[in-house]
Amino acid sequence: MKEFELIRQIQRETRVDFPRGFEHGVILGIGDDAAVLELPAGRQLVAAADTLNAGVHFPDDTAAYDIGYKCLAVNLSDLAAMGATPRWALLSLSLPQADAEWMQQFSAGFRSLAQTHAVALVGGDTTRGPLSISVTVLGCIEPGRQLTRAGAQPGDLLVVSGSTGGAACVLDLLKAGKPVSDRRMLDRPQPRVRLGQCLLGHASACIDISDGLLADLGHVLEASGCSARLEIENLPENHLLAGLAEEQKRRFQLSGGDDYELLFTLPPSFREWLADLAQQLDIPLSIIGAIEQGAGVRCVSRDGASYHPRDTGFEHFSQAT
Amino acid sequence: MKEFELIRQIQRETRVDFPRGFEHGVILGIGDDAAVLELPAGRQLVAAADTLNAGVHFPDDTAAYDIGYKCLAVNLSDLAAMGATPRWALLSLSLPQADAEWMQQFSAGFRSLAQTHAVALVGGDTTRGPLSISVTVLGCIEPGRQLTRAGAQPGDLLVVSGSTGGAACVLDLLKAGKPVSDRRMLDRPQPRVRLGQCLLGHASACIDISDGLLADLGHVLEASGCSARLEIENLPENHLLAGLAEEQKRRFQLSGGDDYELLFTLPPSFREWLADLAQQLDIPLSIIGAIEQGAGVRCVSRDGASYHPRDTGFEHFSQAT
Repeated sequence: MKEFELIRQIQRETRVDFPRGFEHGVILGIGDDAAVLELPAGRQLVAAADTLNAGVHFPDDTAAYDIGYKCLAVNLSDLAAMGATPRWALLSLSLPQADAEWMQQFSAGFRSLAQTHAVALVGGDTTRGPLSISVTVLGCIEPGRQLTRAGAQPGDLLVVSGSTGGAACVLDLLKAGKPVSDRRMLDRPQPRVRLGQCLLGHASACIDISDGLLADLGHVLEASGCSARLEIENLPENHLLAGLAEEQKRRFQLSGGDDYELLFTLPPSFREWLADLAQQLDIPLSIIGAIEQGAGVRCVSRDGASYHPRDTGFEHFSQAT
Repeated sequence: MKEFELIRQIQRETRVDFPRGFEHGVILGIGDDAAVLELPAGRQLVAAADTLNAGVHFPDDTAAYDIGYKCLAVNLSDLAAMGATPRWALLSLSLPQADAEWMQQFSAGFRSLAQTHAVALVGGDTTRGPLSISVTVLGCIEPGRQLTRAGAQPGDLLVVSGSTGGAACVLDLLKAGKPVSDRRMLDRPQPRVRLGQCLLGHASACIDISDGLLADLGHVLEASGCSARLEIENLPENHLLAGLAEEQKRRFQLSGGDDYELLFTLPPSFREWLADLAQQLDIPLSIIGAIEQGAGVRCVSRDGASYHPRDTGFEHFSQAT
């Protein structure tokens, strides 16, 4: 199989069916030196890039379908955290060898999510090398409306979507060679694109949880110049964590990465609005604490006692010099 | 060294000094979940992504400075081939370990070219993995003005910038363990950004030579539905090729990749304009043949005899199944 056949296969098998009348803005897609794209009138461009490496970001035995799905999901999650509307993606794929069947599964996974969010694959490249997938996603937003990490204010509610700790729990079981009934928490994160858009004009700060809740909360607090009180019993618990020892459970919830939920802050007057939104989107939205003056995170139990977590999140180079 | 320190180092050391009054359009750069960018009014977006893997796209002993330079150069070359104006870049860097000194050199190389073309690094990520660099470049263009591979017409002149075969010659010497006086043809390709912009409204088709002249010419001919006569004695010869056997020289010129020159077609009335442009930009622009009806490439010598090249260009997966 040649490189150009591979590119044609990807192009064919990731093609999305756009709704009738949908302006996808692709003036020139895959097949030239670069893509030419038209942003909707009056919008700014939002761009993010994330790489997944085999053995680092997913276990070596991960299904090709799930790799194709996840490489787009983690990028869409970055757009979701900004409240942006996804439009296009570029895919740089390094493969040890060209394998049409692997590619078909990969493309099917990528396409399933691209279809859901009406994302057109418009470029990229395929090269020979250790399995690695770099995706750049491009989206758009009304000028000045983006959610950022800065902007949280003392008194704001601290909210997280979905549940936390599930992906880390699955990874831990896999590493220990234990049976896993359901790998989806790790392999099929759901980027909260719609939620991010609904938060526009309401949330004061937003981030996606990729490095772990505590680490990502730390980014928000640093950018906003605030501290937070985190009520650990209010952390939404993934069903996979039921039955685990308390310490283990807290570690997954607070420091496990790969959840791709949104962590955001809202003025306290939005409590009711938040409950309505959770119902409307059918996504749990849990108030897990509040923003305070100062710096750092204070974890507290319901009885008011402080809790001191051991890990603070995922660091790619923490063991390196 | 931690991941966040690494990101801060890259951010600091790749920062470009823009001319006073230059509208860089970076609303939100590195440091949030995604960048927010403003395209100049009335422009469309042009996007390309290319990856370099150690041992595949550059020899393992390549200097960090040159890797930083080249990963941006090959991407800018794609924008050049469209006639686009570069604006922003995203960098996904996989590193076996975090090394502040390597990073400093890499950033310096990246920055030198970013400064020349006023490109702001606005996002990306750093991950642990085999050395691999994925760059996405974003640029802009007036609607409908982009150069594409389609559009060459029978009778058009076939033109190439600079010289060909130099990069392949250097790589060949390195692989054979022979001394190389000057690696720059391989390590420091000059993206022809200004040339591409000057071709807007004049060239009928354009591509950059990354896979080798014959292979890339083939893409233009396929997209344009034409054939070409290629006058092999008119191919501009890199000085490194002097003294090589004829067959070897032709192989490097016709099939060696990594030259990153522009190959383009022009109506025959542009002969004089082309000579003026070459002088103005101080870049050799050689007429190496003409577009004809039909399909495929016919290589001819000055005496009118046909020449049959052995290779047709670089294929990443040609040995794979």
